[in-house]
Amino acid sequence: MAAIQPRTLKGFRDFPPALALVRERMVDVARSVYRSYGFAPIDTPALELAEILLGKLEPGAEIARQLYRFVDNGGRDVALRFDLTVPFARFAAMHVNELGVPFKRYHVGAVWRGENTQAGRYREFLQCDFDTIGTTSEAADVEVALVIHDLLVALGFDRFTVRVSDRHVLGGILDALGVGERSGGVLRSVDKLAKQGPDVVRDELVEAVGLSSAQAADVLEAALGGLDAVAERYGGSERVAGGVARLRELLAVAAAVGIPDLRLVVDLSISRGLDYYTGTVYETFLTDLPSIGSVCSGGRYDDLAGLYTNQALPGVGASLGLDRLLAAMEELGMLGPETTGAPVLFVRFPGVALADLQGLAAAVRRSGIGAEVYPDLKKVGAQLQQAERRGALVAVLAGPAELAGGVVKVKDLAARTEATVPRAGLVDEVRRVIRG
Amino acid sequence: MAAIQPRTLKGFRDFPPALALVRERMVDVARSVYRSYGFAPIDTPALELAEILLGKLEPGAEIARQLYRFVDNGGRDVALRFDLTVPFARFAAMHVNELGVPFKRYHVGAVWRGENTQAGRYREFLQCDFDTIGTTSEAADVEVALVIHDLLVALGFDRFTVRVSDRHVLGGILDALGVGERSGGVLRSVDKLAKQGPDVVRDELVEAVGLSSAQAADVLEAALGGLDAVAERYGGSERVAGGVARLRELLAVAAAVGIPDLRLVVDLSISRGLDYYTGTVYETFLTDLPSIGSVCSGGRYDDLAGLYTNQALPGVGASLGLDRLLAAMEELGMLGPETTGAPVLFVRFPGVALADLQGLAAAVRRSGIGAEVYPDLKKVGAQLQQAERRGALVAVLAGPAELAGGVVKVKDLAARTEATVPRAGLVDEVRRVIRG
Repeated sequence: MAAIQPRTLKGFRDFPPALALVRERMVDVARSVYRSYGFAPIDTPALELAEILLGKLEPGAEIARQLYRFVDNGGRDVALRFDLTVPFARFAAMHVNELGVPFKRYHVGAVWRGENTQAGRYREFLQCDFDTIGTTSEAADVEVALVIHDLLVALGFDRFTVRVSDRHVLGGILDALGVGERSGGVLRSVDKLAKQGPDVVRDELVEAVGLSSAQAADVLEAALGGLDAVAERYGGSERVAGGVARLRELLAVAAAVGIPDLRLVVDLSISRGLDYYTGTVYETFLTDLPSIGSVCSGGRYDDLAGLYTNQALPGVGASLGLDRLLAAMEELGMLGPETTGAPVLFVRFPGVALADLQGLAAAVRRSGIGAEVYPDLKKVGAQLQQAERRGALVAVLAGPAELAGGVVKVKDLAARTEATVPRAGLVDEVRRVIRG
Repeated sequence: MAAIQPRTLKGFRDFPPALALVRERMVDVARSVYRSYGFAPIDTPALELAEILLGKLEPGAEIARQLYRFVDNGGRDVALRFDLTVPFARFAAMHVNELGVPFKRYHVGAVWRGENTQAGRYREFLQCDFDTIGTTSEAADVEVALVIHDLLVALGFDRFTVRVSDRHVLGGILDALGVGERSGGVLRSVDKLAKQGPDVVRDELVEAVGLSSAQAADVLEAALGGLDAVAERYGGSERVAGGVARLRELLAVAAAVGIPDLRLVVDLSISRGLDYYTGTVYETFLTDLPSIGSVCSGGRYDDLAGLYTNQALPGVGASLGLDRLLAAMEELGMLGPETTGAPVLFVRFPGVALADLQGLAAAVRRSGIGAEVYPDLKKVGAQLQQAERRGALVAVLAGPAELAGGVVKVKDLAARTEATVPRAGLVDEVRRVIRG
């Protein structure tokens, strides 16, 4: 009997090929979009000193209780990172002078949180963050919106909306309405508009936050209104006017690069994490699956690394919820059955030298098409069945008779057709079948 | 003053863009080679139950002392994985029935070992493993050698040697010499031939292992000899003959796929980890940097997952020491100065709308070439200087005068030449400069 029961930890999971292939492709796509805008990768350790990771947290914060924290063999108080932002702040404080600003980085990596496990939530998940730091230029804010849009398109999504706001707009309006000192509570309430609707939020603004009914009505009107209405009524506020101008510039750029109107909209009600973001904020919803929440969110901040350096590091960025998107793709039926890295399978026959088969397979691989030789001398039908189940597209049958005749058979596994071609024509025939 | 001193844990390090870009490229290359042979990715959690990870270890084994092991918030005894083999064994025991055999997987992931830190050794490093399990076919063994060869070539190495042996050859010879019961000690000694030379090994075989001088001479002759000599003298042993036949088939396949002679050689002296490998073994040395040791090693084993399942899972595979190779590339001067994801920089000018610049940049990006817009209105010289330092190849200068005239300037940052082209000719000119 086996000595140990094989199992994963609660809240953790394995990725078999069907999932891992898709996740790898998503990471590749994300990287290539980030790079196409001049972001470069960085990496940081999974383990950090607990002091570094906990520095920014309020005492008793939920995330501190979720931390995988322990004393290592050297007696150090260490923990697994729970996000990529804190490690980036630490990294920036240490390296920004040699790297220079503006500095644009992306970072794809696992993070760990001992959360209560729910459906679709895991204790280890992949984050894909990108940020530009060391600049207050609105050009960087605009770029983040373009990157989010291009990311979603490149990942295969057509129906989604990137919602953008600038916290100075609603903040300036609250100042103008004389309730600036309540902006924290107001923004927290207004942020729930999409989920809970205006009636609930109006009640909360009056009862919990302490606005008058008229103030609550004004706030809701502004949050639900467009830039023009806000500019007309509150344009006298320099803070509002600045935010409106930045959002208008963003829309102008979006139009210039050809982003369809519905894919990028201004929504003055959103504000995201209140204590951290200080300007532009972003969130992204899938039209066909709004229930999973924002799949790419972020914003502008004034001070990335104040705990670790005296150097002011303002910046703007966002985080792609890659594992959440993967779950969405699973739910939307966007995943295929593919579980092999190679579209071409060479069937093995008794009496055929491995050198002959691998020689032919090498020619296919050199043309840029993956090709594997089935290792076992099983029945042809069994070999073909496994190839099909794994999503291979082509089987090559080169038995003793074919090779003696200087030909090979190329089988289109989807169409269930077969062609006999000269050995020298193998690569062309394989390419023809695969490219359709 | 900053509240917390930013630092990484001893033995851990950050990857700034210059290193992270290269490492990402190496991982991409490795994945594409693995996939081209039909290996598919899997992933497993960084954290496992300590019981799972420790199952295979001898009590008191060094690796157990190096483990990052702790009790999690749920009271579980857990640890960070120290290699990718044990998690794969656990994964295979759980999933192999649904996945079917032969099953070919690759796995790229970090592993953690609290080793004493030395130059170039870290406590967190990336492993790139690939294996075929569920088959005893020699076709899988041959394929591993082809994959190792293609990996090194694809990573940019020209001068390297993959050394292959089959432990049955030397094992059979020891049987024939009547010292089969000492094969453990003999193989351990003989494995040191390349490093310590024949004299040291001969002494060790006699003094420590207990062979006679004649036996030691026979062993050395066999280990240093070629397949033909061994076949002639020991061909009567079925075990030796089988190993020789498998190695000859491997060489025949290597010739058929066009691998140069010196890149793949049989070396009967190698045996790798004695307790684990049971047939073919591989190691790979860089001709120009032999001192860093084998950069890709592996072999055949009879029983991957015996601790976790009663199902026999024989297999064969190898592990690419990616971080060791990265260190080698650094030492051999194979790394460039590149630290940006985009080869094209658009200089920002006062009086030019962001929409105009991003519109032009989007056209470049749509052609498949990365392009970033400098965010700040710094002096042109400063913007160009930063682009050059980061390894950008092209700067586009589209100031108010150029845009009014319907042209843009395209600057070749390496050649320090500049061309003025119509807006519509921008992408072609950029491509011309980049493709050289």
